[in-house]
Amino acid sequence: MLGRTLNTHQQWLCRRLADLGRVVSRQVAIPDTGPEIQQAVREALSRADLVVVTGGLGPTSDDITRELIAEMLGQPLVEDAQVLAHIEAFFAQRQRPMPARNQVQALVPAGARLLWNPHGTAPGLAMVVRPNPFRSGGGASWLVMLPGPPRELRPMFEAQVVPLLHAELPLTEAFVCRTLRTISIGESALQAQIADAMHPFTAQGLELGYCAKTGQVDVRLAAHGGAAAGVVAQAEKALRGLVGEAIFAEQFEELEAVVVRLLTARKQTLAVAESCTGGCLSHRLTNVPGASAVFQAGLVTYSNAAKQRFLGVRAETLAAHGAVSEAVVREMAEGARTANHADHALAVTGIAGPSGGTPEKPVGSVFLALASAAGTQVKHQVNAWDRETFKQATANQALEMLRRALLGMS
Amino acid sequence: MLGRTLNTHQQWLCRRLADLGRVVSRQVAIPDTGPEIQQAVREALSRADLVVVTGGLGPTSDDITRELIAEMLGQPLVEDAQVLAHIEAFFAQRQRPMPARNQVQALVPAGARLLWNPHGTAPGLAMVVRPNPFRSGGGASWLVMLPGPPRELRPMFEAQVVPLLHAELPLTEAFVCRTLRTISIGESALQAQIADAMHPFTAQGLELGYCAKTGQVDVRLAAHGGAAAGVVAQAEKALRGLVGEAIFAEQFEELEAVVVRLLTARKQTLAVAESCTGGCLSHRLTNVPGASAVFQAGLVTYSNAAKQRFLGVRAETLAAHGAVSEAVVREMAEGARTANHADHALAVTGIAGPSGGTPEKPVGSVFLALASAAGTQVKHQVNAWDRETFKQATANQALEMLRRALLGMS
Repeated sequence: MLGRTLNTHQQWLCRRLADLGRVVSRQVAIPDTGPEIQQAVREALSRADLVVVTGGLGPTSDDITRELIAEMLGQPLVEDAQVLAHIEAFFAQRQRPMPARNQVQALVPAGARLLWNPHGTAPGLAMVVRPNPFRSGGGASWLVMLPGPPRELRPMFEAQVVPLLHAELPLTEAFVCRTLRTISIGESALQAQIADAMHPFTAQGLELGYCAKTGQVDVRLAAHGGAAAGVVAQAEKALRGLVGEAIFAEQFEELEAVVVRLLTARKQTLAVAESCTGGCLSHRLTNVPGASAVFQAGLVTYSNAAKQRFLGVRAETLAAHGAVSEAVVREMAEGARTANHADHALAVTGIAGPSGGTPEKPVGSVFLALASAAGTQVKHQVNAWDRETFKQATANQALEMLRRALLGMS
Repeated sequence: MLGRTLNTHQQWLCRRLADLGRVVSRQVAIPDTGPEIQQAVREALSRADLVVVTGGLGPTSDDITRELIAEMLGQPLVEDAQVLAHIEAFFAQRQRPMPARNQVQALVPAGARLLWNPHGTAPGLAMVVRPNPFRSGGGASWLVMLPGPPRELRPMFEAQVVPLLHAELPLTEAFVCRTLRTISIGESALQAQIADAMHPFTAQGLELGYCAKTGQVDVRLAAHGGAAAGVVAQAEKALRGLVGEAIFAEQFEELEAVVVRLLTARKQTLAVAESCTGGCLSHRLTNVPGASAVFQAGLVTYSNAAKQRFLGVRAETLAAHGAVSEAVVREMAEGARTANHADHALAVTGIAGPSGGTPEKPVGSVFLALASAAGTQVKHQVNAWDRETFKQATANQALEMLRRALLGMS
């Protein structure tokens, strides 16, 4: 609550739960004091069939969630020998002495199920509250406590909470959800293009959702009931018929991962030459595990001297057209391809801002080029965003030029 | 609640409010349906002196917050001529027709104060709920509604909400808050180093907080009351005496911004040669507005061929020591410095993982070098993190080598 940490759990858990057909009705963040934690858990148990609590399971004095919840539910804490052995083994494997305080993590509320934690010391806990004294009618609720670190929470959710939901809180009817990731079409334009074709499916119960990011729009198709799979499949088919070329991925895959995957399958290599994106394009490509098989080099040629030295851009071209020009981006891409003996080279040059614009070339102006064996193509865009958004949007456009070329789209 | 958008408002608003001496007691996210919005606002008004609502002020059919809150508080919505003129001017300036739906954004609950929006169409709104029917005792609460886009919300908060808080909800006593950003010392080690020295100040009411990020720990010093300024200043002095060299910035400044600022002041230039960080270092440096004055080029030499071609790393060095070695990182830095005629060059080579490690050089092994007029220094680290954290941690270490050199630290 001091704003020192960005809460990524909300997005991650909401996405996973929503894609499993669960309706998330509320997310609450509170200070880690006893009354606030108990009050928030009590309110959540009064409302929901499933309450997920994150954090507060560590070994330090402000990790009090386990104790407070056991107390609230009237369950004694019992030391679990298997958990203690797991914690001891965790430290032994890392050749570090086990601090005495970590022993508290082996305490388990009576009746709780253990969720094993291969990535840390604190196990997760799952308890059914039945009868539920906080809920009018007393209907049961499940209370799931997960450790705070994302690298512990996420695999635990996938491997242990998802099966628990299927077994203990089964959906009353089938649920199907597909996300198709699109690029290059704005959210309103995309809606306008597909609205009529989607109408018959929304009439049959299709839930159609959009989420716009920088230059990308995710389309979520979901449906409940016996006909769900058919409705979603037909809606996807119609969507692909209308805007298929703009769909770059399904579910979670990022554009840079798609490009690395396509290059890897074709055994082709890539070099990039960046000016205004300043390394963003190389950074994103090299975030993909295995990128080294296809990515040879990124030349972040911010200065004109560097464009000449590393890419062979000619002084006359720079003098005649300026660094932000079709002629220069073409020489950058071709120079990067030649210097690296690469199958493909991407180049970008533009004005990221906030300063440096002119009436003729305003902030956000950018030229992009792709040089391949078949020749060089150039695009011009105006990405009038703040500096960081500009870099991401421009990197998206460059990656998309390559994706389309690799798939033989015009 | 579908997990399609990351909520950054919580962190940003909590940080600003906490640093202004306000205690944030709860953050709630809800679906944008009428009953959920009204219920959540009602609960918040029953608890707090200040309730901040974000989003739902747009022109589309799911932007219903304005109407719902006016209805809940029994205030009619009245079209405001000045707001309408602002919205019309906003579209006129962009040479776009004003959609009819945007007129709804000129509706203002009777008695509300307008918070002007220079970055968008929807004004913010501030209302005092007095008497407050939702609060036991009826004590007044302020309700502030802000537009959802961060580029609209943040300047509006700074320019208009902060003065409103000072005027309408003044603190009952003085409050002082300072954040000192440290690097290279782990959170526990830092606590151990400063605990004794901080004790007299915490005894005088100093609130001492830590927030650990990748390789960095922010230390927050805060105090209330007449002696607050003195206590915080003395604690800061003591902290600087103990770990002063590790303090790289105050408040919000990022490490890359510090490095660009120091280079700019010295009129010195920088080139970087990256292998395992894959462009992350260049990307971060070029996120800083004005970086082009000091940053000449980044050579992302992922392949050995690129290390030889662009940096002049010798084939014999690669063959004798391998790409991840002290000898190679030294040649990378010196090669980047020479090729770019730069005052300084940073180089990194390592194993980002998840694969590629050996028993001798495990995943996370990295060599860093800084070449300057005075010579070349090399460091070895093992950053055993996931791939993206590895890249950020390594970039931090490289930037820190340069910061220390620029400030004449050993």
